[in-house]
Amino acid sequence: MIVEWEETTDLGPTLPNGFRSAGVRCGLKTEGNDLALIVADRLSAAAGVYTTNQVRASCVDWSRAVTSAGWARAIVCNAGNANACNGASGAQDTETMASIAAEELGIDVRQALVASTGVIGHRLPVDKLRIGIPAAVTALGAGPESDMAAARAIITTDLRPKMLGIRYRSDASPEGVSIGGICKGSGMIAPNMATMLCFLTTDADIAPRDLQHALATAVAQTFNRMTVDGDTSTNDMTLILASGVDANPLRPDRAPYTDFVEALTRVCRYLAREVARDGEGATKLVDVHVRGANTEAEAETVARTIAQSPLVKTALFGSDPNWGRILAAAGRAGVPMDPSRVRVLLGDLPVCEVGSSIPFDRDAAHAYLKGSEVTITVDLGSGSAEAVVWTCDFSYDYVRINAEYHT
Amino acid sequence: MIVEWEETTDLGPTLPNGFRSAGVRCGLKTEGNDLALIVADRLSAAAGVYTTNQVRASCVDWSRAVTSAGWARAIVCNAGNANACNGASGAQDTETMASIAAEELGIDVRQALVASTGVIGHRLPVDKLRIGIPAAVTALGAGPESDMAAARAIITTDLRPKMLGIRYRSDASPEGVSIGGICKGSGMIAPNMATMLCFLTTDADIAPRDLQHALATAVAQTFNRMTVDGDTSTNDMTLILASGVDANPLRPDRAPYTDFVEALTRVCRYLAREVARDGEGATKLVDVHVRGANTEAEAETVARTIAQSPLVKTALFGSDPNWGRILAAAGRAGVPMDPSRVRVLLGDLPVCEVGSSIPFDRDAAHAYLKGSEVTITVDLGSGSAEAVVWTCDFSYDYVRINAEYHT
Repeated sequence: MIVEWEETTDLGPTLPNGFRSAGVRCGLKTEGNDLALIVADRLSAAAGVYTTNQVRASCVDWSRAVTSAGWARAIVCNAGNANACNGASGAQDTETMASIAAEELGIDVRQALVASTGVIGHRLPVDKLRIGIPAAVTALGAGPESDMAAARAIITTDLRPKMLGIRYRSDASPEGVSIGGICKGSGMIAPNMATMLCFLTTDADIAPRDLQHALATAVAQTFNRMTVDGDTSTNDMTLILASGVDANPLRPDRAPYTDFVEALTRVCRYLAREVARDGEGATKLVDVHVRGANTEAEAETVARTIAQSPLVKTALFGSDPNWGRILAAAGRAGVPMDPSRVRVLLGDLPVCEVGSSIPFDRDAAHAYLKGSEVTITVDLGSGSAEAVVWTCDFSYDYVRINAEYHT
Repeated sequence: MIVEWEETTDLGPTLPNGFRSAGVRCGLKTEGNDLALIVADRLSAAAGVYTTNQVRASCVDWSRAVTSAGWARAIVCNAGNANACNGASGAQDTETMASIAAEELGIDVRQALVASTGVIGHRLPVDKLRIGIPAAVTALGAGPESDMAAARAIITTDLRPKMLGIRYRSDASPEGVSIGGICKGSGMIAPNMATMLCFLTTDADIAPRDLQHALATAVAQTFNRMTVDGDTSTNDMTLILASGVDANPLRPDRAPYTDFVEALTRVCRYLAREVARDGEGATKLVDVHVRGANTEAEAETVARTIAQSPLVKTALFGSDPNWGRILAAAGRAGVPMDPSRVRVLLGDLPVCEVGSSIPFDRDAAHAYLKGSEVTITVDLGSGSAEAVVWTCDFSYDYVRINAEYHT
């Protein structure tokens, strides 16, 4: 059982012992940092969860091969170019990117994880990486500055970098375990995959297979429960490196493993909600909570359908207590339900009972929906299962950003 | 085989012999006509296709019971109030609406079809209908004026009324058969249902069961292949009345039936495309054509996923030839595909071959996408099946309309 938490938004990948980070500009985006590097001082257990889109960038295939082997030393990531849909040339460019990093770091190329994000269908300017990657290696450090530089280097249309570090002690790990991470994502965000880029580190001592299981468990409850626009990217991945500096080995049959999964889920949940909050054009973070379902999977399906409904999301942008759209979205989710047993609440305020309108304070509902964090609760009135899906509202700015984001 | 077509956008429900129509204002919308009536001079075969949403307005259950019995004399429809999610009171109000129409027309209440569209969860102001329905009966007529009044009375956020009348002659029906219809729909538009309101009439002599089969066949290829926002309404229905004034009975085992289905599909396709063209905030009509699929169902699934992608639709609003988003949407559709065999064309212009970028004239592509009608073609390079789904782009005005459409 975890007995103590410490949490910071100032440190990420280098909070755990044994890691260094850097973020530099190499000229792939029109401005700002666009190349991030996370390096483990020693060979680390590695795991990854990847996009389920059949149209995959070559970096997804590359990094999956690395994490399948189970060990890595570094993550190198560029923003501003997804290097997706570039055929054999794209695969070659991914390998070149890994090779440059490996050579500069003096590591095996098969231990260099690669990620890319940005526009699809343009060749990666490898020449810029030949200059940028050595610069990043030179800039490597541990601490708030290098972590924040790395967090800034992986974002695209995000307004804010996303970072968290936590340290916990449990009765089984009294000496403490750290987990840190950075994350990006704002559009082309949908569940059923790793959902965006997230790079995590930990000093836990854990075998690759167990690390993969822990990561998959955490991602299923967090990144895969978050949606901005329902569009699944070609490049999504969540990666984790475990340096094993912590003395206490974590195995699934032991209590410390359970604590680790809980802590990892906590980090991922924070970062997933930050992605939803920073969804393209978003003015508010929305928790869609479905309860009273027969199974958790059914609760999740209904919550996801509501969270992806353009009509619900535009009503939220207008702070309009339009529960009819919420109920209509629930009804088309493909989950058997009895509309006459359904309740809908906005925050704590019931707005629909037994599937029908009830009198409620519209001004209070409107004022609640104007907040920056909103919870919609739909009680299906059937079983006892529940799920939460995080999303954001749908604003003029989503249209502006995506109509003007020219190829 | 059909040997001659005549088509008009000036006449709809009263083009076929034996029908009268009316549209009047009874005060449910803030302005304009909001009550439509279509009346058959004699008992007519009736068929309907209804929303698949489990949250259904009571008018859906009412009208389904009527068309299940197979015969009707009238369709009464109000706009401005969906009478959905109103529980037992809502069901009572639907029956009252049917009763008023039946009494005024001197017909059996079980032969009065009812439809409603508008805001969810507000009681239907039946008192206004007690004045409006008699006024509509008084206004009944045949011709362009009454048909256009009816077409205007069923719309909500639509910018334009939607109407078509056709008359065809075939070698099997040399004397000619007419089909007319009006339609509404602009938001909360998604497939897998009747999709919006559409009221059709014909003078064909056809049994109710055969009429139901013909309508379901036509809807599957038309209204169920059209999407504006993926949100399935609680009130959708497509209804048809067949007066049987035409002397030539249509039976599924005879050639004239095939001609009738072809003609009915043609009317429905025109109206479905008009709905997509007039989608909330739309600046263009988009045909998403997927070919080279293994089955028509798979082609339809891929086309629908592209047609519902917010990223594709916002790129289309920006007239941006962002084929990467099209390919990414295809890749997440859940249909097995080999990305390296996929081609994408904008109009006649190839922009992606073997799943990769190719050089193309970006100015020409941009100019093409600025048009009011756009075709996206995705060739999966596998089988020979194909499907078209119609949609529109996603603009600021979609957000404005749905954020400001207050309950």
